[in-house]
Amino acid sequence: MSSEIHQKSFGKYATLLALLGEKPALELMPDHREFSMVTGKVGSMDLKKVISSVETAAKRNELINPGIYRETHALYHAIIEAAEGVTHGKLSVGEVMRTVGLSFSVVRGYPYEDQNEGEWLAVCFYGTIGAPIKGKEHETLGLGINHI
Amino acid sequence: MSSEIHQKSFGKYATLLALLGEKPALELMPDHREFSMVTGKVGSMDLKKVISSVETAAKRNELINPGIYRETHALYHAIIEAAEGVTHGKLSVGEVMRTVGLSFSVVRGYPYEDQNEGEWLAVCFYGTIGAPIKGKEHETLGLGINHI
Amino acid sequence: MSSEIHQKSFGKYATLLALLGEKPALELMPDHREFSMVTGKVGSMDLKKVISSVETAAKRNELINPGIYRETHALYHAIIEAAEGVTHGKLSVGEVMRTVGLSFSVVRGYPYEDQNEGEWLAVCFYGTIGAPIKGKEHETLGLGINHI
Amino acid sequence: MSSEIHQKSFGKYATLLALLGEKPALELMPDHREFSMVTGKVGSMDLKKVISSVETAAKRNELINPGIYRETHALYHAIIEAAEGVTHGKLSVGEVMRTVGLSFSVVRGYPYEDQNEGEWLAVCFYGTIGAPIKGKEHETLGLGINHI
Amino acid sequence: MSSEIHQKSFGKYATLLALLGEKPALELMPDHREFSMVTGKVGSMDLKKVISSVETAAKRNELINPGIYRETHALYHAIIEAAEGVTHGKLSVGEVMRTVGLSFSVVRGYPYEDQNEGEWLAVCFYGTIGAPIKGKEHETLGLGINHI
Amino acid sequence: MSSEIHQKSFGKYATLLALLGEKPALELMPDHREFSMVTGKVGSMDLKKVISSVETAAKRNELINPGIYRETHALYHAIIEAAEGVTHGKLSVGEVMRTVGLSFSVVRGYPYEDQNEGEWLAVCFYGTIGAPIKGKEHETLGLGINHI
Repeated sequence: MSSEIHQKSFGKYATLLALLGEKPALELMPDHREFSMVTGKVGSMDLKKVISSVETAAKRNELINPGIYRETHALYHAIIEAAEGVTHGKLSVGEVMRTVGLSFSVVRGYPYEDQNEGEWLAVCFYGTIGAPIKGKEHETLGLGINHI
Repeated sequence: MSSEIHQKSFGKYATLLALLGEKPALELMPDHREFSMVTGKVGSMDLKKVISSVETAAKRNELINPGIYRETHALYHAIIEAAEGVTHGKLSVGEVMRTVGLSFSVVRGYPYEDQNEGEWLAVCFYGTIGAPIKGKEHETLGLGINHI
Repeated sequence: MSSEIHQKSFGKYATLLALLGEKPALELMPDHREFSMVTGKVGSMDLKKVISSVETAAKRNELINPGIYRETHALYHAIIEAAEGVTHGKLSVGEVMRTVGLSFSVVRGYPYEDQNEGEWLAVCFYGTIGAPIKGKEHETLGLGINHI
Repeated sequence: MSSEIHQKSFGKYATLLALLGEKPALELMPDHREFSMVTGKVGSMDLKKVISSVETAAKRNELINPGIYRETHALYHAIIEAAEGVTHGKLSVGEVMRTVGLSFSVVRGYPYEDQNEGEWLAVCFYGTIGAPIKGKEHETLGLGINHI
Repeated sequence: MSSEIHQKSFGKYATLLALLGEKPALELMPDHREFSMVTGKVGSMDLKKVISSVETAAKRNELINPGIYRETHALYHAIIEAAEGVTHGKLSVGEVMRTVGLSFSVVRGYPYEDQNEGEWLAVCFYGTIGAPIKGKEHETLGLGINHI
Repeated sequence: MSSEIHQKSFGKYATLLALLGEKPALELMPDHREFSMVTGKVGSMDLKKVISSVETAAKRNELINPGIYRETHALYHAIIEAAEGVTHGKLSVGEVMRTVGLSFSVVRGYPYEDQNEGEWLAVCFYGTIGAPIKGKEHETLGLGINHI
């Protein structure tokens, strides 16, 4: 992937944040310290709650400006793309008798060398999906990327 | 995610393999050396070619037995789940004017403490998706998990 | 689109009704006065309520015969196709933290020159979709067409 | 829809452009003259060709800057959302034995009163979808909106 | 399912035709002799070919009138619904490295006691789906129903 | 379909169980007596209830071992595939104003001649889908197959 020369892999950084946490992620990718980021956790049978947990974390930590709709819109679509990875394209959790327990990360910054490309957002979910019974679950992952 | 006590995070291991390669993945998760794994790369506008690259790599490296259909079936569904993350639930690449450049990993082993849970497969894709023009792309990721 | 010679664009008429209202739509397409039609409004986070508002309006205004299932069936599928445009193929509103505020129209009649083609239905939605916060929304549109 | 006080209905304008053409659209919505726009036509069994026709028209008419990926990315997702309306969420044309004959419009500008909301894009398709036989078709419509 | 008192299970008849063939189906449901029907076989990696095989069989056997679009439209949507069962909602075969070998049936008639409900169509596919290698496949089934 | 020489059509058996009941199914396919099976009925607007009815029936009748997650996982995916046939790829019932009344069957055993292929599961739903009003419905069917 020659493209990695031209852009900083901030999606990889978001994924390492969700998989490993902040300290190990920065040790592996120290030059990504310049990106803003937030991490959190959410467990639910309700996709709505998963979406709103990420939105709330991003707003509270001033990763996006809640007063500007285009920022909410950019984040919303990045969350939905990440959720499509988690649910394997079905965008349903409780409705199909599944529950999720997820770590998430949101990363914001300039991934492209050309500053005209502006700011982008990455959202990553990592955790488990399965039956609403402890242990009856396996891992799941999703990444969404959008310009802001 | 209390479930991590009960299972080895072999999906996380598959993701680190696709993101970082074998050596850094094993440094982060040394106890996962017991899992069989294969990594590779594929770039295409053709989802068929992406699927068959993973299948071929898994068969050539004896990660699955090509003579037993249940192993092919288990791998196929894990690949499709991972591809749904990459394509955000659309399972189309060239048909919607996109191209992908992907690293992939396949991991096989016993992730659950209870050996009766048997063997499972994890497939991870990480790379770029975008217009078929160099640089007009962003990162993408997908993980699929299945029992074998 | 040479096909417009062969059929009356009653889907266009349904769309103008939802976008502009009855009077401007008929001024633009006066020969469509022969088609039966009904318009209404619905706002909700619940797709069920959106569907039933259109069904109720069509039944109350005798656009379809509620005693005959084939008419309900034809209308239902036209509504679902229009809703797929509104939700961009996801058929979810509240479940993914969105709300809609929609004008709708239902049009019934003979769009094809050949009377053997019989009666058809067009359903159009136009309005806004977005976060359940005033102003955090953009426009959306959907059109469904079915034979009755 | 009280939201219409807060934003200019540039999606409605894009739809009228695709339905009626430039002159009638501007007569109905004269204050939208400030928005940049382009219209065109495309007929195909190949969704790729539909997507690239809109991209080419938008680039040739300098509606988007082809040198900046974020503009291509914003347009691409608006086209895909509009195509999901046209194909009723299936994003397939020739693969499922259908052909489309479409007028399209792309509109760019500031739809929100608050200039901090920046520029947005609307893409509208209107035309016919059906069997690849003349006359065996009905109307179809799709609208996609994205921030740029 | 008390509804079976009110309608003839012509979808069950279509399924038995696809599963068992004409003679056993009629022995099990002799009162369905009044329905028109056609059966056939198709094997392909190309969904287009599957769709057109059913359309051609229905037209050649005068199950639908090829000169009337509403009949083609009704059949097309019944085929697509049946194909969604076969492909588990993905509507892709060769694009995702699968091949199908299918028996199909099309049944036409009056399933409801109330003759005002008019004529309906049922399309059933039964066969195998799998890797394009002999034996690497399992069974699959789909049923689509539409008013005509 | 030459593949029928190599495997027992246990999906066909599951379908006949759901369509006709145990006695007629065994009369048509007497050599399938060796397969374990369970049948049941469920009516609901709630897909969750449909899924859990099948899971409960399979566990109570010891068709799967509830203590082993891989068995729950295999059954869950077979149920979802069957439900995708019933809902035509939408996986929604009440959310889109539909209700289902279904017979179901679950079959477990060795369908392939080669015993190394191990055990597989088939899940079939047959019944009605429609408006939540008696008689406003038509037949629906779905089959899911998975290795266990």
